[in-house]
Amino acid sequence: MNIRLYNARILTMAEGQELFEGEIWVQGDRIIYVGETIGADEVYEKLPAKCIIWDREIDCQGNLLMPGFKNAHTHSGMTLLRSYADDLPLDQWLNHKIFPVEARMTGEDIAELSKLAILEYLTGGVTAVFDMYLTPETIAEAFDQMGMRCVQVGAVNNFSQSPGLVEEMYQKLNHAGPLLSYIIGFHAEYTCSRELLEEIAGIAHKYKTPVFTHLAETEKEVAECRERYGMTPLAFLDSLGMFDYGGGGYHCVHMTPEDIAIMKKRGLYAVTNPGSNAKLASGIAPVTDFLKAGVPVAIGTDGPASNNCLDMFREMFLVTGLAKLRDRDAAAVDALEVLKMATVNGAHAMGLRDADVLKEGKLADLIMIDLNQPNMQPLNNIPKNLVYSGSKENVIMTMVGGNILYEKGNFHTKDSPEEIYRRVEKIKKRIC
Amino acid sequence: MNIRLYNARILTMAEGQELFEGEIWVQGDRIIYVGETIGADEVYEKLPAKCIIWDREIDCQGNLLMPGFKNAHTHSGMTLLRSYADDLPLDQWLNHKIFPVEARMTGEDIAELSKLAILEYLTGGVTAVFDMYLTPETIAEAFDQMGMRCVQVGAVNNFSQSPGLVEEMYQKLNHAGPLLSYIIGFHAEYTCSRELLEEIAGIAHKYKTPVFTHLAETEKEVAECRERYGMTPLAFLDSLGMFDYGGGGYHCVHMTPEDIAIMKKRGLYAVTNPGSNAKLASGIAPVTDFLKAGVPVAIGTDGPASNNCLDMFREMFLVTGLAKLRDRDAAAVDALEVLKMATVNGAHAMGLRDADVLKEGKLADLIMIDLNQPNMQPLNNIPKNLVYSGSKENVIMTMVGGNILYEKGNFHTKDSPEEIYRRVEKIKKRIC
Repeated sequence: MNIRLYNARILTMAEGQELFEGEIWVQGDRIIYVGETIGADEVYEKLPAKCIIWDREIDCQGNLLMPGFKNAHTHSGMTLLRSYADDLPLDQWLNHKIFPVEARMTGEDIAELSKLAILEYLTGGVTAVFDMYLTPETIAEAFDQMGMRCVQVGAVNNFSQSPGLVEEMYQKLNHAGPLLSYIIGFHAEYTCSRELLEEIAGIAHKYKTPVFTHLAETEKEVAECRERYGMTPLAFLDSLGMFDYGGGGYHCVHMTPEDIAIMKKRGLYAVTNPGSNAKLASGIAPVTDFLKAGVPVAIGTDGPASNNCLDMFREMFLVTGLAKLRDRDAAAVDALEVLKMATVNGAHAMGLRDADVLKEGKLADLIMIDLNQPNMQPLNNIPKNLVYSGSKENVIMTMVGGNILYEKGNFHTKDSPEEIYRRVEKIKKRIC
Repeated sequence: MNIRLYNARILTMAEGQELFEGEIWVQGDRIIYVGETIGADEVYEKLPAKCIIWDREIDCQGNLLMPGFKNAHTHSGMTLLRSYADDLPLDQWLNHKIFPVEARMTGEDIAELSKLAILEYLTGGVTAVFDMYLTPETIAEAFDQMGMRCVQVGAVNNFSQSPGLVEEMYQKLNHAGPLLSYIIGFHAEYTCSRELLEEIAGIAHKYKTPVFTHLAETEKEVAECRERYGMTPLAFLDSLGMFDYGGGGYHCVHMTPEDIAIMKKRGLYAVTNPGSNAKLASGIAPVTDFLKAGVPVAIGTDGPASNNCLDMFREMFLVTGLAKLRDRDAAAVDALEVLKMATVNGAHAMGLRDADVLKEGKLADLIMIDLNQPNMQPLNNIPKNLVYSGSKENVIMTMVGGNILYEKGNFHTKDSPEEIYRRVEKIKKRIC
């Protein structure tokens, strides 16, 4: 498809580039022009011969085009468990409610449940997710079928998956298609034996590749690791050579200054999940400290069982709102920094170097934000509006790899919402 | 208008009543039937002769009807200042940014700016607001023209309005129309002289009526009051007899156990504003302590300059999320309690005894929530879905006093969004 999006405001998120009025051209899955509005004659001059015919020309009516959000930590298949067990402490919630139901899910179930999550991502302008869950092959298939970009990460622990499977999936699913990639990872220090962790570190070394994991989510986790190994989880994992080729941690709530120094030294990403950390009373991540130390921060929703939604707008407000509360400083973590976390940093953490900003040659993973909604008026400052008053209702188009998957409330995905809801309901009846 | 809403799920919010499937009938501005689905024959039997002819029969398609949200603290006219001055401490923000622009606003400006806020309320399922701002008469007119319910509260301080004006407005605007009421109030202890506060307390006594004010929003405010009067703001105000006939405080962040005891003793409402308190780094209100003491809690967004949106869904998540963080307890303030705050308690705080629950004889202030959106699926627990994963995009109908003012993205208000945006833009150009 060749698509021209004109009469738009554009926030490319490229360093130092301010919002401007102009247009974007998309050919196949790439952006081929981002710039000022140009006259019809010039369009022909600039256009490569092969795409003179637009499949669609979209008048953006002054609305905003920007890179799609990157949800940098989620467990998509957990949609089944949304509002299934709330208002419980993390360990009770996980051991007594979540794990028993998960044990009954098949790979096919997880594919359906992931499709439900994909619909939700699309309504909220998310164009790629960093997904950790149980059955990588059926998850890959689900994302591929729906046309959605997915970076999977290994989820091995003492009870499910194995280092061998993680390595196999890395070989099989990393770049298995234009929408799919796979990164080495494991569930968490507290669910993995030392031997298992050493094997994972070995794989990271073998392929010279980054590793991601849940990290320092609760105080208890950190205290127990200190008891076990005399070190914080990050210091312990680093001592195994786990992060010699980079990577990062999800949550990163209870971090020491030494932990933050390790993050910086190894070039690790801190993926913050404020909604989940609030709902499970895990704490507030030291986002300002990460920024001061030069540790890049990305944002994830965590899974729908712990959040319970997959809404990057809510997360963006929480990142800055909770930082302001934690630091007792209303100037902490300003809006543009948060937007960068939710787009550029997320893309980089996920290894999606071509899906970070809007620029010629980059992937056409972009969204349109309706500025003609009351919560966006008046247009005093659009980036601040996005973070402080923006909402999913403002997302009127979500494009992934050049395909418009969601537009003004309608899904252009292979499976319709009705089919997916019906199949999820059947799964719920069977196993909940 | 006579409207029948059938094939619905219904959450009446009446004490102890669970969600059920059924229908609601509306005649004029009142609900005349809430109950199970009934056959065509029975409809005729039950119907009063005068409304046999429905103006509209709406198939709710299994979606949810519930009472509209009550935004129990806002400054609607501040839409102009949304994203105008963010990421600043409260006193700098107020004195150097907000007050200078406010000084240039006319009553006509404030009416337009309030209309912009009303559009936003409607998109988010808010059916009544507790509004404190500068020009009560033009505000009343704006709400009346738009068909929106508004309880105004006196905003007097040393610099604007006067006790005389508050009394005059109380006489003139309280029940000036079916949508309008007015409650005695003042801006805050720290912006009012002792003499002024004594005059307000005198008015409360004269009319035996409740009083509302900003209360204990920041640590600084409490410390300065202690220095001035040797008491917390609430203890000081109470010592003047301010709350002898009830009322309540907005924010209520920095409260002592003695303050909470006064709240209980006087039957005061604590109106919490978590979005604003986070964004301005004011702190987290002791919501669990209020609940334990039996102090009713309502929820407000605060004005769009400090929040910056008017979204009760975000506030609901924040009320429970921040309580969980503050208490380090994932079980703190459960979802149904939060829903009660956002509907029933808000209505009671605002004196809207007839707009609290869905019941025969009550005002038809209700909303329809789209359950066929991915963030609401599967339907494990609808109240928890509303609080933890709900969003403005789920609001597909907002009815105030029997009139459908917003339906599937379209406004049925006297002034269109386009007209209002254009006029607000003109105001912005003139005074910002």
